[in-house]
Amino acid sequence: MEATKKPAVAIVMGSQTDWPVMEFTRNTLKKFGIESTVKVMSAHRTPHEAVEFAESAADNGYEVIIGAAGGAAHLCGVLAGHTVLPVIGVPVKGWSLDGLDSLLSTVQMPKGVPVATVAIGKAGAINAAILAVQIMGGADAELRAKMVEYKKTMAEEVIAADAALQAEING
Amino acid sequence: MEATKKPAVAIVMGSQTDWPVMEFTRNTLKKFGIESTVKVMSAHRTPHEAVEFAESAADNGYEVIIGAAGGAAHLCGVLAGHTVLPVIGVPVKGWSLDGLDSLLSTVQMPKGVPVATVAIGKAGAINAAILAVQIMGGADAELRAKMVEYKKTMAEEVIAADAALQAEING
Amino acid sequence: MEATKKPAVAIVMGSQTDWPVMEFTRNTLKKFGIESTVKVMSAHRTPHEAVEFAESAADNGYEVIIGAAGGAAHLCGVLAGHTVLPVIGVPVKGWSLDGLDSLLSTVQMPKGVPVATVAIGKAGAINAAILAVQIMGGADAELRAKMVEYKKTMAEEVIAADAALQAEING
Amino acid sequence: MEATKKPAVAIVMGSQTDWPVMEFTRNTLKKFGIESTVKVMSAHRTPHEAVEFAESAADNGYEVIIGAAGGAAHLCGVLAGHTVLPVIGVPVKGWSLDGLDSLLSTVQMPKGVPVATVAIGKAGAINAAILAVQIMGGADAELRAKMVEYKKTMAEEVIAADAALQAEING
Amino acid sequence: MEATKKPAVAIVMGSQTDWPVMEFTRNTLKKFGIESTVKVMSAHRTPHEAVEFAESAADNGYEVIIGAAGGAAHLCGVLAGHTVLPVIGVPVKGWSLDGLDSLLSTVQMPKGVPVATVAIGKAGAINAAILAVQIMGGADAELRAKMVEYKKTMAEEVIAADAALQAEING
Amino acid sequence: MEATKKPAVAIVMGSQTDWPVMEFTRNTLKKFGIESTVKVMSAHRTPHEAVEFAESAADNGYEVIIGAAGGAAHLCGVLAGHTVLPVIGVPVKGWSLDGLDSLLSTVQMPKGVPVATVAIGKAGAINAAILAVQIMGGADAELRAKMVEYKKTMAEEVIAADAALQAEING
Amino acid sequence: MEATKKPAVAIVMGSQTDWPVMEFTRNTLKKFGIESTVKVMSAHRTPHEAVEFAESAADNGYEVIIGAAGGAAHLCGVLAGHTVLPVIGVPVKGWSLDGLDSLLSTVQMPKGVPVATVAIGKAGAINAAILAVQIMGGADAELRAKMVEYKKTMAEEVIAADAALQAEING
Amino acid sequence: MEATKKPAVAIVMGSQTDWPVMEFTRNTLKKFGIESTVKVMSAHRTPHEAVEFAESAADNGYEVIIGAAGGAAHLCGVLAGHTVLPVIGVPVKGWSLDGLDSLLSTVQMPKGVPVATVAIGKAGAINAAILAVQIMGGADAELRAKMVEYKKTMAEEVIAADAALQAEING
Repeated sequence: MEATKKPAVAIVMGSQTDWPVMEFTRNTLKKFGIESTVKVMSAHRTPHEAVEFAESAADNGYEVIIGAAGGAAHLCGVLAGHTVLPVIGVPVKGWSLDGLDSLLSTVQMPKGVPVATVAIGKAGAINAAILAVQIMGGADAELRAKMVEYKKTMAEEVIAADAALQAEING
Repeated sequence: MEATKKPAVAIVMGSQTDWPVMEFTRNTLKKFGIESTVKVMSAHRTPHEAVEFAESAADNGYEVIIGAAGGAAHLCGVLAGHTVLPVIGVPVKGWSLDGLDSLLSTVQMPKGVPVATVAIGKAGAINAAILAVQIMGGADAELRAKMVEYKKTMAEEVIAADAALQAEING
Repeated sequence: MEATKKPAVAIVMGSQTDWPVMEFTRNTLKKFGIESTVKVMSAHRTPHEAVEFAESAADNGYEVIIGAAGGAAHLCGVLAGHTVLPVIGVPVKGWSLDGLDSLLSTVQMPKGVPVATVAIGKAGAINAAILAVQIMGGADAELRAKMVEYKKTMAEEVIAADAALQAEING
Repeated sequence: MEATKKPAVAIVMGSQTDWPVMEFTRNTLKKFGIESTVKVMSAHRTPHEAVEFAESAADNGYEVIIGAAGGAAHLCGVLAGHTVLPVIGVPVKGWSLDGLDSLLSTVQMPKGVPVATVAIGKAGAINAAILAVQIMGGADAELRAKMVEYKKTMAEEVIAADAALQAEING
Repeated sequence: MEATKKPAVAIVMGSQTDWPVMEFTRNTLKKFGIESTVKVMSAHRTPHEAVEFAESAADNGYEVIIGAAGGAAHLCGVLAGHTVLPVIGVPVKGWSLDGLDSLLSTVQMPKGVPVATVAIGKAGAINAAILAVQIMGGADAELRAKMVEYKKTMAEEVIAADAALQAEING
Repeated sequence: MEATKKPAVAIVMGSQTDWPVMEFTRNTLKKFGIESTVKVMSAHRTPHEAVEFAESAADNGYEVIIGAAGGAAHLCGVLAGHTVLPVIGVPVKGWSLDGLDSLLSTVQMPKGVPVATVAIGKAGAINAAILAVQIMGGADAELRAKMVEYKKTMAEEVIAADAALQAEING
Repeated sequence: MEATKKPAVAIVMGSQTDWPVMEFTRNTLKKFGIESTVKVMSAHRTPHEAVEFAESAADNGYEVIIGAAGGAAHLCGVLAGHTVLPVIGVPVKGWSLDGLDSLLSTVQMPKGVPVATVAIGKAGAINAAILAVQIMGGADAELRAKMVEYKKTMAEEVIAADAALQAEING
Repeated sequence: MEATKKPAVAIVMGSQTDWPVMEFTRNTLKKFGIESTVKVMSAHRTPHEAVEFAESAADNGYEVIIGAAGGAAHLCGVLAGHTVLPVIGVPVKGWSLDGLDSLLSTVQMPKGVPVATVAIGKAGAINAAILAVQIMGGADAELRAKMVEYKKTMAEEVIAADAALQAEING
């Protein structure tokens, strides 16, 4: 029973204001039957909590960490510095520059400490979940099968959207 | 014996000119005892080969695909569209705009089809390998242990660099 | 009778959300008596449909393909990889970065596989249609004559706008 | 005999310094048996020549105009304002900003007057020729067949590059 | 009597949609007793009108031309190519990229044909008028005196704003 | 005799390192028989000298001030704050960001205090001189005639370059 | 009694429109018991006031100057040119380019005259106050203790936000 | 005797490759008689060392921390998260994007944890030292006097550069 397993994914946000975006991560994971822990932690304001969390994450059974932050988005890099788990980074639009600062701060990591960066904002939040599923699918055939199914559904949705548009146009 | 295992990682480049950068990926993987297949394939010039490769990659035993491309860098996205494996993208500097085009073309994927993007160029090439190791480490305790070791070595190198600098400065 | 001819132009969108923009393409083509097929297809979510469509487009009587996508906009490049028809690309603003990602992903194509890129968004949607007319006008004197007319009308509209402004200012 | 046909393509450069880039356009056209006229004309320094050239281009038998300019690259837009022919624009890197100014000045045309923009610099110079061939191929089956051939050759080159790399790696 | 003098300044806009911005230019000029002609003309849609206007502007008594355009903003450069008068350029925000395209298209003129570029949008619209006054002030002592006065008033307004803020804060 | 007139133009640089660029301004002015004063002054390091120079510039007979600075390029704005003369700004490439910082710092002036900004670097240095000539030409028919001549020469140079290229190509 | 001390910090804005942002600076300083003077002064419109203020600031007992401006934001650099006090710069979003112009104009100061730049907008306004407290804390143990306390409170707020989110999620 | 005092400033670099830039910081500090400790430490590769250093920096007698890093430059932010001392950040150009990534990662700190950011590269390295002197000058009249002197010298150097240029020009 999946629901009773310890969460395999941790979603860590630099601020509670990131939740409306990152809720998409949690909900997308749920579609795959994956539970997640959601944490608000800051690389700058609660640095000890962030470090401690990252250092014990592997031992606590997490398989993937998904981080989200905006502006000078250091959270994912800091988490990655303290864990051997893969860290996925979601650049969240900050208060200016339309997400460019968040993106560059997340993706341009120096050699040795990668952050697996996905798109800015909601698209990235959803994709962080998909990527986590793809990562965990390597050792979980059932999960991989769900991903195959997900891709089919996605294709069907595009095809349905196309059909709806044809109906609208040619009505 | 690692050398006889089928390669777990595929390194796919959009052009042979990406090899001087992506050789760092292959060499970094080797340090972890991971063999890799290296392929030149183009999303635009050999689209069938790219599609076929991606579609059969999981069945062929690959666990992670690492793509590299420059300019309007579509290769990683196209590979990701045709596989359920995690796809890591290395944006390689193209002929202008200092890698910004490669980065945005790789990372800003629409929902449903993530590319795990790392830094532009050589730093990203190395980090793509590290990330692949972290991903495969989820089901391979030996590999995870090597990653723990790698992080220690990395720290020691920084500490040694610091010591060398102290010596240089303080004579 | 133009209306009974097979459509000469295909408008292919990465998502149905692009339709409010791309409807301008269809409507502009109509002004020239050109029918168009409109399709929703995704380089990443329905890659086979996209490939199949592009590969058979010339045989199906299309003369020009107009693609539209946002973010890491790979659709036009993928279509161009699978056809010998001219492919026009409309970069549609995505969810961040104000269209810069869409533009660079569309225009910075590597040598051998061009995408004829027009402006971001609605202006580009209209211009994609105009460009298609200019392209098809090479073998269609009637169409070329319509384009001459169109340019005259356009000039007259600017002159009328100037006159209206003079009236407003000088009372 | 192709060589005696009037050139179907005009390559117009804002400055003779663009020639080392635009020579790739001419040479690529030649591979398809297409002759081209090469002109240096400036939207700002020889505006009358530019206007006159554009206005008479269709009557002079040109089917496609390829323009190239850097910085505030107005040449292609000005040519497009004075012709009903398709105008392809190659943004050439200027003296600063790594081609971003040239690209935006070329591609962001207002509605009604498109410039079919290709990549910055040499890649774009080659692609402008390919795009011209694709455009003219609509009414020239022989040319279209050459384009089919070109795409095959291109694929074979990538496959050969891949083979060479395999040989290098696997010794 | 200033009102009966022929206008010394021409305000030329690429589109009537620029008028809400450029009305600030006209109104600022009025404060200095300077009449202006306002014209809608397009470098791309009414190229002949634009060329003709620019070529006869000096003979028609204009001393300064102020141009305004957005996107691939070629209008000011085209006007500058056809006149020996100083041309001031106001980059107007287009439909994307927040004015960066308009700015670069206006300011990055090649050697020989300058456009005196001011800030994007309304601030630039006002400043274009001020700059015109400064230019014409070189041969018009009365106008120069008004500019001295204007700067004083401007300073007084800032000082008054400061005083108002002090009152608000210190109650 | 022009050479004995007091210089009408002041060229003010933020650093002596700008001289290799700004020498083009001085030399271009000379071609029109215009003498210039060249000064090194810094908005930040010799603020009093800069202020004093700007405040007395009109009384000292200058008609135009041309400023040049890089990075956070404040010099032109500061000069403009202290004079009623037109101030032309040349953004000089600094030590990073390829001139974008210099450009934005120079052009984005708040309402009331324009800087007539020209292109980044050498092209702008030449154009600053041309713009100064155009400005002073308003009250100097001889200078205006020289500008008419200059534009003719410029056109002839382009035409000659075209001829040379034709010769090269067609042998 | 702190309230009777002369203000140690001056908050200088280029325009009264910056007050809604910079009020956060004043209020944050108040939390630390630090009074501030708030001034509207412009580098360009009231240059003498700005210079005079900066030159006498140290003698008037100020320990830190915080400047705020938008667009070609010269205010902080000008203040820094006229004082030996540390000058903190807050880039305020102007009318276009989303704050990038303000940021580059503030931070890219040439050697010798630093501006301690903080983030764009409100986040920067708050941080300017924090930075001022950190600076003054060097000689004020009580203030330093408050800063220690502030960091604790900040951490507690993040922890509380995390707790609230856990409650929301887990019901 | 200054030389025997414990260093008041710590210069912390993310990599030994930053030393050629940051040596300017150390040398500039020396001109003011200020000793500095130089450390290589990484937010990602030696996170514990970085945290420990920052947490004990105030107790160890440091008054200012100067950090330098490139790419996704997290070092300064991480240091700032663990200390109440003012942290000055020098964005060092990384391997791509010409320093923009380093700048945004350093300056766009969220509220509560400022990094006093200076210019990219060498100019910033020098200015970090000047800013540190200005900060420490608040409680050290002798240091402040040196800063007054420094500004005089700087002005004299500009004046001398101007004189040299006059000599060169006027021969």
